[in-house]
Amino acid sequence: MSKTNRPGFTSDYMEGAHPTILQRLVETNMVQAAGYGCDEFSEAAREKIRAACGVPDAEIHFLAGGTQTNMTVISAMLRPYQGVVAAETGHIALHEAGAIERGGHKVLALPAVDGKLTAEDVAACLSAYADDENRDHMVMPGMVYVTHPTEYGTLYTRAELTAISEICRAHGVPLFLDGARLAYALGCGANDVTLPDIARLTDVFYIGGTKCGALIGEAVVFPQPGTVPHFFSIVKQCGALLAKGRLLGIQFDTLFTDDLYRRCGAHAIAGADRIRIALRERGYRFAWETPTNQIFLALSPAERERLERDVQIDFWEKVSDETTVMRIATSWATRAEDVDRLIAVL
Amino acid sequence: MSKTNRPGFTSDYMEGAHPTILQRLVETNMVQAAGYGCDEFSEAAREKIRAACGVPDAEIHFLAGGTQTNMTVISAMLRPYQGVVAAETGHIALHEAGAIERGGHKVLALPAVDGKLTAEDVAACLSAYADDENRDHMVMPGMVYVTHPTEYGTLYTRAELTAISEICRAHGVPLFLDGARLAYALGCGANDVTLPDIARLTDVFYIGGTKCGALIGEAVVFPQPGTVPHFFSIVKQCGALLAKGRLLGIQFDTLFTDDLYRRCGAHAIAGADRIRIALRERGYRFAWETPTNQIFLALSPAERERLERDVQIDFWEKVSDETTVMRIATSWATRAEDVDRLIAVL
Amino acid sequence: MSKTNRPGFTSDYMEGAHPTILQRLVETNMVQAAGYGCDEFSEAAREKIRAACGVPDAEIHFLAGGTQTNMTVISAMLRPYQGVVAAETGHIALHEAGAIERGGHKVLALPAVDGKLTAEDVAACLSAYADDENRDHMVMPGMVYVTHPTEYGTLYTRAELTAISEICRAHGVPLFLDGARLAYALGCGANDVTLPDIARLTDVFYIGGTKCGALIGEAVVFPQPGTVPHFFSIVKQCGALLAKGRLLGIQFDTLFTDDLYRRCGAHAIAGADRIRIALRERGYRFAWETPTNQIFLALSPAERERLERDVQIDFWEKVSDETTVMRIATSWATRAEDVDRLIAVL
Amino acid sequence: MSKTNRPGFTSDYMEGAHPTILQRLVETNMVQAAGYGCDEFSEAAREKIRAACGVPDAEIHFLAGGTQTNMTVISAMLRPYQGVVAAETGHIALHEAGAIERGGHKVLALPAVDGKLTAEDVAACLSAYADDENRDHMVMPGMVYVTHPTEYGTLYTRAELTAISEICRAHGVPLFLDGARLAYALGCGANDVTLPDIARLTDVFYIGGTKCGALIGEAVVFPQPGTVPHFFSIVKQCGALLAKGRLLGIQFDTLFTDDLYRRCGAHAIAGADRIRIALRERGYRFAWETPTNQIFLALSPAERERLERDVQIDFWEKVSDETTVMRIATSWATRAEDVDRLIAVL
Repeated sequence: MSKTNRPGFTSDYMEGAHPTILQRLVETNMVQAAGYGCDEFSEAAREKIRAACGVPDAEIHFLAGGTQTNMTVISAMLRPYQGVVAAETGHIALHEAGAIERGGHKVLALPAVDGKLTAEDVAACLSAYADDENRDHMVMPGMVYVTHPTEYGTLYTRAELTAISEICRAHGVPLFLDGARLAYALGCGANDVTLPDIARLTDVFYIGGTKCGALIGEAVVFPQPGTVPHFFSIVKQCGALLAKGRLLGIQFDTLFTDDLYRRCGAHAIAGADRIRIALRERGYRFAWETPTNQIFLALSPAERERLERDVQIDFWEKVSDETTVMRIATSWATRAEDVDRLIAVL
Repeated sequence: MSKTNRPGFTSDYMEGAHPTILQRLVETNMVQAAGYGCDEFSEAAREKIRAACGVPDAEIHFLAGGTQTNMTVISAMLRPYQGVVAAETGHIALHEAGAIERGGHKVLALPAVDGKLTAEDVAACLSAYADDENRDHMVMPGMVYVTHPTEYGTLYTRAELTAISEICRAHGVPLFLDGARLAYALGCGANDVTLPDIARLTDVFYIGGTKCGALIGEAVVFPQPGTVPHFFSIVKQCGALLAKGRLLGIQFDTLFTDDLYRRCGAHAIAGADRIRIALRERGYRFAWETPTNQIFLALSPAERERLERDVQIDFWEKVSDETTVMRIATSWATRAEDVDRLIAVL
Repeated sequence: MSKTNRPGFTSDYMEGAHPTILQRLVETNMVQAAGYGCDEFSEAAREKIRAACGVPDAEIHFLAGGTQTNMTVISAMLRPYQGVVAAETGHIALHEAGAIERGGHKVLALPAVDGKLTAEDVAACLSAYADDENRDHMVMPGMVYVTHPTEYGTLYTRAELTAISEICRAHGVPLFLDGARLAYALGCGANDVTLPDIARLTDVFYIGGTKCGALIGEAVVFPQPGTVPHFFSIVKQCGALLAKGRLLGIQFDTLFTDDLYRRCGAHAIAGADRIRIALRERGYRFAWETPTNQIFLALSPAERERLERDVQIDFWEKVSDETTVMRIATSWATRAEDVDRLIAVL
Repeated sequence: MSKTNRPGFTSDYMEGAHPTILQRLVETNMVQAAGYGCDEFSEAAREKIRAACGVPDAEIHFLAGGTQTNMTVISAMLRPYQGVVAAETGHIALHEAGAIERGGHKVLALPAVDGKLTAEDVAACLSAYADDENRDHMVMPGMVYVTHPTEYGTLYTRAELTAISEICRAHGVPLFLDGARLAYALGCGANDVTLPDIARLTDVFYIGGTKCGALIGEAVVFPQPGTVPHFFSIVKQCGALLAKGRLLGIQFDTLFTDDLYRRCGAHAIAGADRIRIALRERGYRFAWETPTNQIFLALSPAERERLERDVQIDFWEKVSDETTVMRIATSWATRAEDVDRLIAVL
């Protein structure tokens, strides 16, 4: 088999969009609609998301991608002297090329435990600032940022998220949840955090589309409307306002019709679970355990070579000459026959 | 006829995408591709754009929208102490909610003549800075920004653009052309500025997709590769890098196949020309003359009411109680029967 | 007489500090004091300024210079999507090298009438934004900035300042007065704007020290304490917090003891008035009329050459080959014999 | 003895300026001089600093304080996508209230060993970026920042600084030395890093005045002139340009006359050494060893109470209920009788 024909498990954004979305884009293509997210498709999508999250008054904006959404939300919520608390492995801390700093804010990195912040560390960080006699010379923690699922494919439990939320509220610090891969939590049996939970526990969050079935798009939800006055203008100022907002509205309207969003997630998890079982049976070592669509293996050079001969997987990190961490990612688009082929070569 | 059934001429971004583009998105949907613009579709699109512009070595990046592209390119090209020269009616000066200033740079606004900068004003501005004894306390003009077509639907002639380009080069100041509506210049008989002209006369420019047939997308062209080192990281930092860069690559590959981009423009101009002729015959007053897809009328209240009963047109500016400027815009998507209907009610 | 011995009237910051200030610095030099403006000298100065301004609760911070103060106050008061309204001749609009834009904000320039904003223009600007259907794509006027005296040596009347203040309050937009040369208004017979007036009509202002008798220093006054939460941290973040805040406290304590600040101003005005009378008698043309320490003359080349042979004056602007505007500035430090010499050569 | 009469050892910026400096300010007070650092005092100071550093062509600017200097130099040297490498205990990483991030740049924090970066960690950081396949999504290390002496009172050896410098040059990354307390290194027997060494090993550094005998002031030295084009405008834009630049020029001219700068440092070290010897004799525990003007003690509650009854010392950090780290700082201003009193109460 030629190298380029190898089925790809390198990421969850290798294909276009779920066919239902494309079909809907085709059907609505020549309908004339207002620009900048003021169209009826976007409004319909907002209503469905409000219902799914149990927050009938929520304010919802659609943006194009994850880094863009993080930088826009964070710079909108923080005052100049504030920074955002995140796990040192958080996307904003590592892989956004300084987008948060370009907006003028420091990322206050805390240790990550399985890719997650712990309530203890958050509490210690917020208290340390409050107690420091030199705090007026320091960056104030003005927001806490979590990802669910995390960059390491792990999940917060509802108890963990509740604990962090309570600490944030006790300190008057808003909690922001980055759900770039949220479908892969919601579609996962091990997950006990629902959309209404998130809407209740956070001050702002987003529901990722780009990696979860859409061409592009992230739905930012403020459970309390008016949390950030003039957020629309801030979105525009950040270069994040699409003239054809319909493109985002139609996609999210489709994702939140007939449970498509959750189904996209569940499809990916089903594939990942089959792979996980096979890996375990064959005795592979997991770099760490994950219940979501991302699997991290600790491979020997021979194992890596054997796998990469037949499938594309993702280099994550070299641990030693003997061990490399490689990532296998499934998605809404993963085909059963490709999972079969992967399992066959394990 | 109900209000919502009125055909819309309020902007050139009311529909989705040219059907050929949608079809191509459907056909390629399940092809797995690399992320972040490193896919083969994007590479193919780059090759076609290089050929169309006559710059075989050009460096090309695909971004999502106009404001985003302006802020990314301008902040990438300027040093901290520099600002960008633009017409006072330029998009970056007025309607980007301060995106350029968010990036730390001043927009140095010059008077607009028919929406355009004049070579004389640009020369005067650059010389004034060079000659001012206090220039070290002032913002240095570090770039000149023009739009083609302009926000007022007008066009630079090749002679005008050449004159501005020569002044810029004499002062060592780069020239940036915003082509958000470039198809509507290229498809216009009155236009004598070609893509190779633009590539030759400017230091960076972009070919607009969003308003010219695509769902979203702007193709940034640096005729000289390496003009801005690490431009990719700057795009990422500005939140302007799409994980699914394929979405942009496929669209531009299609737009630059079989001359579709120019045809999109020509279609809009044909419709606008029919409307212009009818308006002239009926004795309407033009607020100012335009050869492109945007027509600006000076209407009395009675005229405005009559037109808006049957078609949607765009409020532009109230001049007096007796006169309002309204805009009629056609696009790649304008239907002949809607043009007929508009002409019928004039 | 050698060129370097010519008495200088080129600016009001050519000498060190009023001798009383230097003497006080010497006397207190070895007293140990707390850092960062928490010392007893700064606290004493604050009390005296509060009394002079009739605002017993005012919050007062000492910064080092004018541009620094403008950028710190403006970026502290504005939200990201807001800009600051200023006369096109205002210091922040022209001669601060983009310091406001570096902080992310646009300067919304209005025409200057004798270097001043008019209430009508401010009202029109604020209303235009409120009425514009595209305002969400535009920079919101979030503050109005005036200088008193202006960069052109002119003064607002109390009626003018009251009118601007009322418009600002009607729109909920704070008013900021830059008093870099305030002593030269307060010491001027033509001025009817007192410190309590300023404290009552503005939301934040500063009392300039650098050009009014101090080595360095500007006293920022917020008549309402807590106007900007954590302003101290913002000052630090802007690099504007002096470790030895005592240097500023001692100077302002001295300036507000025994009426020294007003006396510094009155001294400069007395000198300027003598020069103005002589100029008028000799038939010189004033470029525009000023009652303060700055005099602007429209000189022929021969006049200019004659004056510059014996005294140093400041080039302001070349109007034509026949006419150049030159500035004569007096200050707290101007010596009577130098005024005599200048008058002698007119 | 009353609390307020206790001699203070809490910091090295509790007094005004070295008397020689004040005397010089008094003598020159009424000399008229050009503004903005273009005066003859500043030029004389530059010449003396060039001579002391052995770099006859060096470009030298005078700024007011440490945070201001750090933010100005760093934002001038970095491109938007770059960050600055610093020890996690570095001033820019911890105690500048986000001034670097306000300028748009990330501080890339590395572990501190005795308050210092190690060459190994710097090499690893620069190599890790160069080797990371995702580096284009990350902040590029664009500068390395060291303090000498460090915030922990420790010193780099010439060998250590040379090793870091060589790594920086191998990677094409400039090295920036913050010498806010440089006099206390130069006046210290244990120090083997001279001004010419620093000028040779770094790309930009500053000689601290504020904490070393001046009222305010830091002298920024670029050994290679023109390193940052238009640095003057950047200083202005950062609000760091003093109208009365003479204030800085006169002070540095004085500090670099008759070896005053080094003598200020040596005076502080002599006092600190006497205290260190006495502490050692009395069996006090040092939190860590330092050869400079700062001494860090690990005190029991009883020890702390006894000392603070008679002298003011600085709280640094609580380690446990049994141990608190307290700082004793001497300076150019420390009086022998106060050292005696401190030693008497140990």
